[in-house]
Amino acid sequence: MIILHTIAEIRRYVQEQRMGAKTVGLVPTMGYLHEGHLSLVRQAKEHCDVAVMSIFVNPLQFGPNEDFDSYPRDLQRDAALAESAGIDVIFAPSVDEMYPSGNGKSLTHVDVEAVTDTLCGANRPGHFRGVATVVTKLFNIVMPDKAFFGLKDAQQVVVIQQMVRDLNTPVEVVPCPIVREPDGLAMSSRNVYLSDDQRVQAMVLSRSLSMAVERVQQGERDAEALISAVRAMIEEQPLANIDYVQAVSLRDLTPLQTLDQPALLALAVKFGKTRLIDNIVLDIQR
Amino acid sequence: MIILHTIAEIRRYVQEQRMGAKTVGLVPTMGYLHEGHLSLVRQAKEHCDVAVMSIFVNPLQFGPNEDFDSYPRDLQRDAALAESAGIDVIFAPSVDEMYPSGNGKSLTHVDVEAVTDTLCGANRPGHFRGVATVVTKLFNIVMPDKAFFGLKDAQQVVVIQQMVRDLNTPVEVVPCPIVREPDGLAMSSRNVYLSDDQRVQAMVLSRSLSMAVERVQQGERDAEALISAVRAMIEEQPLANIDYVQAVSLRDLTPLQTLDQPALLALAVKFGKTRLIDNIVLDIQR
Repeated sequence: MIILHTIAEIRRYVQEQRMGAKTVGLVPTMGYLHEGHLSLVRQAKEHCDVAVMSIFVNPLQFGPNEDFDSYPRDLQRDAALAESAGIDVIFAPSVDEMYPSGNGKSLTHVDVEAVTDTLCGANRPGHFRGVATVVTKLFNIVMPDKAFFGLKDAQQVVVIQQMVRDLNTPVEVVPCPIVREPDGLAMSSRNVYLSDDQRVQAMVLSRSLSMAVERVQQGERDAEALISAVRAMIEEQPLANIDYVQAVSLRDLTPLQTLDQPALLALAVKFGKTRLIDNIVLDIQR
Repeated sequence: MIILHTIAEIRRYVQEQRMGAKTVGLVPTMGYLHEGHLSLVRQAKEHCDVAVMSIFVNPLQFGPNEDFDSYPRDLQRDAALAESAGIDVIFAPSVDEMYPSGNGKSLTHVDVEAVTDTLCGANRPGHFRGVATVVTKLFNIVMPDKAFFGLKDAQQVVVIQQMVRDLNTPVEVVPCPIVREPDGLAMSSRNVYLSDDQRVQAMVLSRSLSMAVERVQQGERDAEALISAVRAMIEEQPLANIDYVQAVSLRDLTPLQTLDQPALLALAVKFGKTRLIDNIVLDIQR
């Protein structure tokens, strides 16, 4: 496995692979890898001849009061983990390499409307603009055949899929299932921020989603009633501070009153300063 | 020469060329070809093995009160002209093929800041967003090695170059010189709108730019004085209605007070309902 830091180097590497008629899979990450990322690497290796991982904490997708500076970074640890999962090359550019005009800013942005208005988009203005812009850059740099994204960031997957359709981006987006800790907590690089108490109470997130799935299986179709039950269960944990709990259409993320179609039940909850997200697909037939 | 109407067809065509190790040049147009477009085709054939022309009147770059509906269209005539200049394939998609969600709209846009605030960008809100978005789509569909743009739309060239730099778009942008009628009028598909009287008076545009170049050669460095002289000459024509006359930095299109660097002298003038643009590069050393 090799680690490359410049755009010119990764372009040359990928071009050489293409000359050998190899297909290329990209796993875009912000590093501080966990089992969720590694499952994406395994998917990439299953689908493609060569698996490229980008590791880049993208300043453009962080708000001014968010955790860009403190976001955990450890390239050496990441490289060892990625290699163990079978990655072929890591592309780990500097902020200046990705945003050469300085200060981590860009005059050009990719904006996706509508599907960015709800869920995390409502509370993190500019976040998905930063995501869509850096993903476009990474696609243009690596030119992968397929790109692998985890469904923990379900809205991100929907946004990228919308962007790829609208801009005719020649990349196949492959969504991959959420990977969870044995006790149910969705894997996240931000889990390391949690205190012991917060970590225990955060188990309520996946538990509340499982409860919701059961309710739906028992026939619940009223979105408000379902959301209230989830909120009530989370609020039993004194350290939990709900950002949102929403039931939206899986297709276009518009809020649902009645659960009469495939839906996404998504939530964001703060424990102290740490904001965790989780979600589950409600497989409801029309 | 062949004409293709679907994205799938042009992708297949280009892929076959690439399998044969051929390089691909793209000439994006809105059709109703003139000598300016044909000069781009000749450039494309000189630089690349295969020359692709797109012909697509892009609704996204027209304002609600602009001439999208009346913009001249004649594919048969265009095909004959393009073939005579050596084009290999024309990609002429429908509006629904490019914007399948209907009504010629897209949820995703590519926005370029700063360089779109002046000149035509100031008077045509959303215009360059539409241009950047459709050019991104065309680049993603055709995946050319190089793309050829005329300098009559100098701001468009600067916007596309900025976008390509910011998004790491893997396409080389090749700017090509303005082509003029024998009497100096810059070639434009919109020239057909002009009445005989307007056509005669429109000659003042290139004449005023030539006069400005002379003044600069004689030592004029005050932008306001130069602009006033250009405006005065144009205003002598009773049918001319000035939209703007501006002197801007060639690098980032910021307005100049003093002509102390390579500059673009650009103008937009209406004759009746027809808005014409023209410009000239002032080759001033810092």
